[in-house]
Amino acid sequence: MDRILYELCGARREQVFSPFSWRAKMALKHKGLDFEARPHSFLEIPGIAPEAGRTVPILSDGERIVCDSWAIATYLEDTYPDRPSLFGGDGGRAACKLIEGWANAAVSARVAQLIVKDIHDILGPEDQAYFRESREKRFGRPLEEVQAGREERLADLTTALLPLHLMLKSQPFIGGEAPLFGDYILFGTFQWARVASPFRLIDPETPVGMWFERCLDLFDGYARATPAA
Amino acid sequence: MDRILYELCGARREQVFSPFSWRAKMALKHKGLDFEARPHSFLEIPGIAPEAGRTVPILSDGERIVCDSWAIATYLEDTYPDRPSLFGGDGGRAACKLIEGWANAAVSARVAQLIVKDIHDILGPEDQAYFRESREKRFGRPLEEVQAGREERLADLTTALLPLHLMLKSQPFIGGEAPLFGDYILFGTFQWARVASPFRLIDPETPVGMWFERCLDLFDGYARATPAA
Repeated sequence: MDRILYELCGARREQVFSPFSWRAKMALKHKGLDFEARPHSFLEIPGIAPEAGRTVPILSDGERIVCDSWAIATYLEDTYPDRPSLFGGDGGRAACKLIEGWANAAVSARVAQLIVKDIHDILGPEDQAYFRESREKRFGRPLEEVQAGREERLADLTTALLPLHLMLKSQPFIGGEAPLFGDYILFGTFQWARVASPFRLIDPETPVGMWFERCLDLFDGYARATPAA
Repeated sequence: MDRILYELCGARREQVFSPFSWRAKMALKHKGLDFEARPHSFLEIPGIAPEAGRTVPILSDGERIVCDSWAIATYLEDTYPDRPSLFGGDGGRAACKLIEGWANAAVSARVAQLIVKDIHDILGPEDQAYFRESREKRFGRPLEEVQAGREERLADLTTALLPLHLMLKSQPFIGGEAPLFGDYILFGTFQWARVASPFRLIDPETPVGMWFERCLDLFDGYARATPAA
C-alpha cells in the first residue's frame, strides 16, 4: 500500500481515538482513496516523520508526506480534484476554517475536560506518564480534578452545540444534503470521545445525536467499526 | 426604484440597527444591486407586507416579496447568478447555515444581553413600550438587570469569538481572501451593536476588531456611513 495514514492508539491497537486523525481518515474515505491506517502510541509519533511534523495525523502518499488534518484535507482536494469534493467549492473551503475554529475552541475544548482522565486510562503505561504530565501542565491541575463533576457540565456542552442543533432544522449535514469536510471536522471530536470514554456526551435520540449516528453509518459504517469504549 | 429593503430604525431614521437587515443589505451590495432602504419603527413593521412576514428585513424586488435574511440571500443568489456569488458554491451555502446558527446562538445571544437597554433607549416612545414588554418577557427580568454588569461579561464574548480569532490566523474573511455571506451574517451582529449602543464590544486593534473594520470599509464604506451610537 502506497498510502499510509499514521494515527494514535491506546494500549489496545483498535483504540484509535485521535480526533484529528479521524478527520483525515473520513476525508480519505470521502475521496474514495485506499489507505492503510497505522496506529502508534504517543511516544512513537515524533519518530514517524520528524521532518514533516511531530503530531498525528501524518499522511504518506507515494513520495509526499503531509502532517496536520487541515493540510491533509486540502492536499487531497487539490491532488485528487476528480474525486468527490471535500468542500463543495472555494466558499465551502474557506467556511470550513471557521468551522474548524468552532469545533476546536467551542466543542473539543469542552469535551476534553469531560473525558481527559478516561483518555489517560486507555493508554499504555509509558504513554500514561507522558500524557498525565503534559496535560496536567496544560490544565494546571490533576486530570481527576479536570474531569470531576462532568455530569453538571454536560448542559454547557449542549449549549455549545446549539449552532449545530439550529442548522439541523434545515439540513441533515454541515455539507447540506450530504456530508463534506465540515462534518468530518466535528465528527472527529465525538468519535474521539466515543472511542476513548464510556461517558455519553450526546443523546442519540436528539438531532445532534442523530447527525452523529448518520456520520457513523457513512462508508459502510467505517467509523462505527472502531469499537466504542 | 423597483427594489426596496424594509428595515428597522430607532427614533432617528438614520439609526438603522437590525442585525438581520444588515445581513440583507450587505448581500444586496455584494451582488451590486441598487435598492432603496426604507426604515420603519417596530410597530410599523407588521403592516409592511403581512402576507410575507412580520419581521424585517423584507425585500420587495419587482413582483417578489421575500422576508427573512437567509431567504433573501438565497433568493438573490438564485435570481442573480451572474452577479458575484454570496456563497462561493454549494458547500459554502450549506456551511453558512452552521455559521448562521453560530452567529445567532453563540454571538448575538450574548451581545443582546450586553446592549438590550441601550437598544431600548434609541427607540421612539411607542416602540419603547413594545420593546420593553416583549424583551422583558423573553429574558424574564427588567432590561436594566439584563444589561447590568456587562463589563464582566465581555470576556465571555471574547471566548465565544475564539473560532473567528483562530480562523483569522489563516485568512482575512470568513469567505477566504474576500468576504462572502458568512461574513455579513456575523457582521450584522456587530453593526447592530455599533449603531444601537455606545458600549464597545471589540477592541479595533485585535484581529476580530480589524475584521470588523474591514467589513465597515466594504462597498466604499457603506456600513460605516451609518453613524455609530
